[in-house]
Amino acid sequence: MRNSLFPVLGVLGFAVALFSVAFLVPLTYAFVTDEPTVHAFATGFLVTFGIGVTAHVLTRRFRRELQPRDGFLLVSTVWSGLPAFATIPMVLFFDDLSVTDAYFEMVSALTTTGATVLSGLDDMPASINIWRHLLSWMGGMGILVLAVAILPLLGVGGSQVFKAETPGPMKDSKLTPRITETAKSLYMVYLMLSVACAISYKLAGMTWLDAFLHTGTTVSLSGFSSHDASYAYFDSAAIEMVAVVFMMIAAVNFSIHFLAWRGKSFRPYANCPEAKWFFMLMFGAVSLITVYLLAHQEYTTFSEAFRYALFNTVSVATTTGYANTDYSQWPLFAPLLMIFLSMFATAAGSTGGGIKMLRAVILFKHAIGELSRILHPRAINPVRIRGSAVSPQVIFGVLAFMLMYGMSVITITMLLIFTGLDPISALTTGISMINNLGPALGEFGPVDHYGALGDFQTWLCSFAMLLGRLEMFTILVLFTPAFWRK
Amino acid sequence: MRNSLFPVLGVLGFAVALFSVAFLVPLTYAFVTDEPTVHAFATGFLVTFGIGVTAHVLTRRFRRELQPRDGFLLVSTVWSGLPAFATIPMVLFFDDLSVTDAYFEMVSALTTTGATVLSGLDDMPASINIWRHLLSWMGGMGILVLAVAILPLLGVGGSQVFKAETPGPMKDSKLTPRITETAKSLYMVYLMLSVACAISYKLAGMTWLDAFLHTGTTVSLSGFSSHDASYAYFDSAAIEMVAVVFMMIAAVNFSIHFLAWRGKSFRPYANCPEAKWFFMLMFGAVSLITVYLLAHQEYTTFSEAFRYALFNTVSVATTTGYANTDYSQWPLFAPLLMIFLSMFATAAGSTGGGIKMLRAVILFKHAIGELSRILHPRAINPVRIRGSAVSPQVIFGVLAFMLMYGMSVITITMLLIFTGLDPISALTTGISMINNLGPALGEFGPVDHYGALGDFQTWLCSFAMLLGRLEMFTILVLFTPAFWRK
Ligand SMILES: [K+]
Ligand SMILES: [K+]
Repeated sequence: MRNSLFPVLGVLGFAVALFSVAFLVPLTYAFVTDEPTVHAFATGFLVTFGIGVTAHVLTRRFRRELQPRDGFLLVSTVWSGLPAFATIPMVLFFDDLSVTDAYFEMVSALTTTGATVLSGLDDMPASINIWRHLLSWMGGMGILVLAVAILPLLGVGGSQVFKAETPGPMKDSKLTPRITETAKSLYMVYLMLSVACAISYKLAGMTWLDAFLHTGTTVSLSGFSSHDASYAYFDSAAIEMVAVVFMMIAAVNFSIHFLAWRGKSFRPYANCPEAKWFFMLMFGAVSLITVYLLAHQEYTTFSEAFRYALFNTVSVATTTGYANTDYSQWPLFAPLLMIFLSMFATAAGSTGGGIKMLRAVILFKHAIGELSRILHPRAINPVRIRGSAVSPQVIFGVLAFMLMYGMSVITITMLLIFTGLDPISALTTGISMINNLGPALGEFGPVDHYGALGDFQTWLCSFAMLLGRLEMFTILVLFTPAFWRK
Repeated sequence: MRNSLFPVLGVLGFAVALFSVAFLVPLTYAFVTDEPTVHAFATGFLVTFGIGVTAHVLTRRFRRELQPRDGFLLVSTVWSGLPAFATIPMVLFFDDLSVTDAYFEMVSALTTTGATVLSGLDDMPASINIWRHLLSWMGGMGILVLAVAILPLLGVGGSQVFKAETPGPMKDSKLTPRITETAKSLYMVYLMLSVACAISYKLAGMTWLDAFLHTGTTVSLSGFSSHDASYAYFDSAAIEMVAVVFMMIAAVNFSIHFLAWRGKSFRPYANCPEAKWFFMLMFGAVSLITVYLLAHQEYTTFSEAFRYALFNTVSVATTTGYANTDYSQWPLFAPLLMIFLSMFATAAGSTGGGIKMLRAVILFKHAIGELSRILHPRAINPVRIRGSAVSPQVIFGVLAFMLMYGMSVITITMLLIFTGLDPISALTTGISMINNLGPALGEFGPVDHYGALGDFQTWLCSFAMLLGRLEMFTILVLFTPAFWRK
């Protein structure tokens, strides 16, 4: 017990203490603008910092090198624990917000799901929205390192193939500096992108506050807005274009952005199987939905149909979740297709959720390969990604991931139906939570919020968001007896 | 062309000529009872027999040993071609039945799906129902040989593991006699089961005609009834019990029945991983749904809730499709769970449809194995079925099958939604067709029929039934360029 849990608790305490610094941002804003949230954020900071430091110090003497097994526990507890601390100021400030709902909101922020239980966002103290959006932005940073450095190390669901090609000198060095180096390059891209996005939003007509808030939920593909009406509030084609461009950039593997920036060349994009498929898919889907909306006379002009098809399709497919109209009122084929795309449009190493394009490409090539293997049982044609053969072990991992993904969607959908949701709301909510998308259809469309969920359903959705964000296995492995043996 | 297609056409012609004999059964009945369908069945017989014999004779000089590649073409054309001939008397007799609908009905019969576009079944000439039910019964025979002898030979979707353990002396002999021997043992079981089922139905209170008709759609798990109200027409617990027992027997691998019969022992069932899981699953599902129905006050007494839960759950899970009440009116969790079970409850080598329990067991064990492989990357613990390790090739095949299955369900559902169905009807119809189940939910519940489908939708559903029955790959491989090369 002491030997297995305490070292993890020590690192966790350090992470919590570090995380407490984040509280200072909304606290400072609230203090300067004299908002009634000062007390809530100050308490949140003190409690979080105190508990983090205490845990770190008390477990100091158990410190040791972490094992892969510790990794699962650490990643799971960090991603489920930090939202618990983030919940403190929310519960303190809102009289009528249950712990269940507040935890959902904070998990939603940190996993960049962007599903909200709150309404009346426009009238809240800005510091509350700053908190939600800041957590989303930080969640985006967490995801980048998770996807290209930590999950591959843990061997989760074929993610070995996601591994970043770290720049030259670091190639065969020790673990920690390598992760650090990878994180540095990705964060540089993330920061540059954030600055560019904020300036673009401002130039397109947002206030500086809105520009900052929405940058935090655009580059992280979170999809939170500080307005109940989401992007319909702005009703500006220019602002929507900025969002579309940056959502698409953030849905591409950040390692590719880094390589392109370092080499001052677009070639890395052309060589990336994910980016190629992603752009083709977006082009096809937006075209199809534009035509479909015109054919069903949802819009009368091409430019109008195109504007709404483009913004909402890109938003949903990239697992962002912004909306500039209530697309759940469109004939159902369109929003269902959009949600279907959110399963695999985003790249591994992006801030998006879902199965990830790389897994989808591997699966697609494997399925085609199996078809031809039926005709030529002895032919050897391994799945190739960027020219090199993908090992059977990785393919097995990807296929097992798909199984877990499918079983999770079905189980969560059935539990939501069992507890009273209608099937369309249940299915799309299940998919939306696991994909870290945000909005669903039915009761939980883009203009609704998740306040109507029951307590059990809310916890289930919080679990589903974490399950999706940590790519199933990281969490599921904790439920195996083998994990806790010895 | 001549060398590749004509030999297949020759065998196909032979099959068609042989199939024409089936027309003589309803023809004889119609002749004896003086029904107005005599002309239709006589014409059907003559045309079918004539075309079959002509095709066989004309291609005689191209005859040669068939290759595996021919197998795909032959199996696909037999299963899509015979329903076309079966359509003839239907179109001739019914003035208002389109070719589209008639073909759907006949594909539904031969694939033992049991979905109907007809209403007013009770008032039709009995010979029409005899034709539908006879084709279902024959379809059941076709499936048995397909599953345990032909598909394993073609290497479809991991089905190598389905291969029947043929009785001793034939073990290493040539192909054709081995298939013949396997077919003989399975057909003996099928015939004995049919006789037992018919007698039981009669003893339970059916007329002889109803007993024969419903035996044909019970042992084949087709689910056609000669009454619009299905089993609600009889409203007899005794008749329902007979149906439940024989549906469950027919959902078990017929090779196991054969082994049990030959060895006069129940041990083969205990050693069969599919039978064990199937019975546990049925027990669990019926218990859960009984309690669920009582909790939702659909029924007031336990015995009533149990009666309806048992009959309809077993009927849907075994992909039969009989109903003794409109279960689509139950709270949706129950019918959705039933349809979900229909995906994998039936055994490989049974007359049921869907993914098959053996694939599900392999997948489940593989997923568990992957979870423990994450913790112990170097441990070797292969998936075992009946004590022997399953080869990676088979697991790859099963996983590819799952992919194709999932993609097919999603594609067909989306196409049905695109062409105007509501999502629940579309999803459950897609699953129902691919699983060869029959009834769906929404517009196409157990008391509805499929006459409301548009032409395109009807053809799509006919395709889906064939796709499911031939386990995806047999048909999909025909759409690969590689198949037609050289
Ligand atoms: K999101
Ligand atoms: K059926």
